[in-house]
Amino acid sequence: MEIYSTLSRSKENFETINDNRVNLFVCGPTVYDDAHIGHGRTYISFDTIKRYLEYKGYAVFYIQNVTDVDDKIINRSKESGIPADELARKFEKRYREDMHKLNVDGVNLFARATDHMPEIIDQIQRLIDKGFAYETEDGVYFEIDTFEEFGKLSNRNVEELESHREIAETTKKNQQDFALWKKREGVDEPTWPSPWGDGRPGWHIEDTAITEYYFGEQYDVHGGGLDLIFPHHEAEITQMEAVSGKSPMVRYWLHTGFLNVNGEKMSKSLHNFITIRELLESYEPDTFRFFVLSTHYRSPIDFSKDSLHQSERSLDRIRKYYEQLDVEVTEEVNSDYEVLAKWGNEFFDSMDDDFNTPKAIAAIFGLINDSKNELYNLSEEDKIAIKSFLDDASHILGVSFELQDVNAGSDDLLGLISEVRSELRAKKQYDLSDKIRDNLQALGYDIND
Amino acid sequence: MEIYSTLSRSKENFETINDNRVNLFVCGPTVYDDAHIGHGRTYISFDTIKRYLEYKGYAVFYIQNVTDVDDKIINRSKESGIPADELARKFEKRYREDMHKLNVDGVNLFARATDHMPEIIDQIQRLIDKGFAYETEDGVYFEIDTFEEFGKLSNRNVEELESHREIAETTKKNQQDFALWKKREGVDEPTWPSPWGDGRPGWHIEDTAITEYYFGEQYDVHGGGLDLIFPHHEAEITQMEAVSGKSPMVRYWLHTGFLNVNGEKMSKSLHNFITIRELLESYEPDTFRFFVLSTHYRSPIDFSKDSLHQSERSLDRIRKYYEQLDVEVTEEVNSDYEVLAKWGNEFFDSMDDDFNTPKAIAAIFGLINDSKNELYNLSEEDKIAIKSFLDDASHILGVSFELQDVNAGSDDLLGLISEVRSELRAKKQYDLSDKIRDNLQALGYDIND
Repeated sequence: MEIYSTLSRSKENFETINDNRVNLFVCGPTVYDDAHIGHGRTYISFDTIKRYLEYKGYAVFYIQNVTDVDDKIINRSKESGIPADELARKFEKRYREDMHKLNVDGVNLFARATDHMPEIIDQIQRLIDKGFAYETEDGVYFEIDTFEEFGKLSNRNVEELESHREIAETTKKNQQDFALWKKREGVDEPTWPSPWGDGRPGWHIEDTAITEYYFGEQYDVHGGGLDLIFPHHEAEITQMEAVSGKSPMVRYWLHTGFLNVNGEKMSKSLHNFITIRELLESYEPDTFRFFVLSTHYRSPIDFSKDSLHQSERSLDRIRKYYEQLDVEVTEEVNSDYEVLAKWGNEFFDSMDDDFNTPKAIAAIFGLINDSKNELYNLSEEDKIAIKSFLDDASHILGVSFELQDVNAGSDDLLGLISEVRSELRAKKQYDLSDKIRDNLQALGYDIND
Repeated sequence: MEIYSTLSRSKENFETINDNRVNLFVCGPTVYDDAHIGHGRTYISFDTIKRYLEYKGYAVFYIQNVTDVDDKIINRSKESGIPADELARKFEKRYREDMHKLNVDGVNLFARATDHMPEIIDQIQRLIDKGFAYETEDGVYFEIDTFEEFGKLSNRNVEELESHREIAETTKKNQQDFALWKKREGVDEPTWPSPWGDGRPGWHIEDTAITEYYFGEQYDVHGGGLDLIFPHHEAEITQMEAVSGKSPMVRYWLHTGFLNVNGEKMSKSLHNFITIRELLESYEPDTFRFFVLSTHYRSPIDFSKDSLHQSERSLDRIRKYYEQLDVEVTEEVNSDYEVLAKWGNEFFDSMDDDFNTPKAIAAIFGLINDSKNELYNLSEEDKIAIKSFLDDASHILGVSFELQDVNAGSDDLLGLISEVRSELRAKKQYDLSDKIRDNLQALGYDIND
């Protein structure tokens, strides 16, 4: 299996540190608002990556941090009057509900920043002790000049840090230095006691404190959105490799591409900002998941109603084919059906090639196209083998291939409403009967008179 | 909050090692067969304990080991002709499916013995180095005489070990010594390389190797069935405290009581052995969960059809009451409804008292009995507050209080049909509108004009 790492900018053979165990860390949400479809894209991608690693026999320990203390949370708390900790818990809960709806259930441990203050403070102290960090009157800072390799992930240099929001402070030795600890500024912000007085951690330190505690100084895979490479992930490497003296902190850095909406960057000012909750009012979670996985995780993806509908239709094609198989998978079977062998191999080869889900999905359609006209001719064993392959694919993609019964439990109502409509038509009350027809069609029911 | 620990044989104040983090380990299954309802009882209990700790604000890291190499698995493999590793994976998968159906989803990490061979071998090596263990021609053994505190959990003594299955070997210094590593005996058993030749771990060592790796030498809570106290948990303490020199290895030892069937011990020879899969063919998962939680986790529990039906009826009473509330919980409300305050406190006081779920459930019925006749008189706020309390209780117990909606997916249709009926009434076409009403009532829908 080959995985592209942002650090080497190339595909590398996947070799873990501990046999078949994989320690996987992905930057989790800052819980000050509902998650949007860009988050959905990133977390669906890593959920599928975890599913595939497990399918391959790896034992994966997947941690996400939860940033529950941060400027954005404090600002939102001041705006809304909800205490910062309550606000953070509320949006963490909603985030987990959203992820569950998207079938993103692979995270083993959500590690909150505020639950790991002893580890954060300890790591900062060791950075100070080793001469990489210093205290000023308003905080503790990492002195970038002490770490020569800064920039190796992003291929960007120290000077570019100067333009970054994080470093507007003035007490630092150098403008590029970034905060590890921010001392209390006002009375109405959450703080924790530390050797440097009451305050709260900088943004970057929670990740390395958490991963050092659970995984150790070095681990296998770190993921996140492309926008986090600089300065966030660069700062993580800087902190961890400085404190441990060991390199690399992480073997494989995986970054998901951007999600645009109708060709434009998603932003509140452009009024094209879509939360997962809003999305799921109109679309089945599986449709969005299938849409996301139809593009490679590293590529940009363009969200539009048209492409969602396209995904809906594509998924429907798979489901109708799956329904036709009409066999039950019980025990393993032997099948030498060549069409399945060819496209099955193509599916797994594609997944082995840096988790290329669009190619893997294309292999499913290859199988469907090459077999659909001869299905009636196939042996029971061949059909069971096809179904078993599709069950594996469905599990890896996290998308159900079962025809969705939207009418579950509604047959009786549908019968009643059709009967009423017939009576109305018999009475030539076409205004009401047409209204029923139009409404039923809008709800997705076929009307055949 | 007070928790009963088997070690002290008393209820103790709950004090964690790391602020509000709790490291929780529960002995998981040996995956050679389907899980039975006794397993269900144990894992439902610990799932609810985890839910309650999280409700109280603790960040819980809950690990279960999976024993996937063991005499039982090897024997079953020989009987069935399925390779041992395949057999173990199959029953692990089925176990996880069963647990998911029981809404037991709280385990953060399933740690397989075979995925932790480096840690197991390393811990055994350190026991040898420190003089607690020795190698013979057929294995490595813990020398019980070197550890004076053996027996402190079970209050049983070394001699009792002699009668135990585990110690039928003959190469040991003392018959009480237990195996840490078993050297290969036949060609058809799974083995791993080690400093003592190819072989496989003894049963007790995987747990302490796994917990030392993820939690460190000391942690908060260890759980399991009552039958595991001796010799299994005793051996765990012996291994870990010997290697670390620190005591106690675990602060709170929690053990679930036995589950009997119609007053008798469940066993295959008595033909009263019930798997979770068999159970769920006849009962809703929530019914079994509610049944389990209606007894305190430490007490014995007697499974019978009658008690299951009793649980079904009790749960139905809660659900019908919940349905009657007929309000939506949106934001927090203030309510000074005394009946709720009284029974709400009683619920949480009971949970704080060693997770006394039967008393907590009785508090729900106290609330129902004392409020059901005045529900129509209560303010909107009071009803929202009751519902919000029941939502919390439902979440903690892991049992849904929603009337199970057989008509799911029919809301849109119901909206349409009501609208049509209103228009018909407006047009005074009472024949059709009455027909709709009668039919809807026959289908079980309430009609309020």
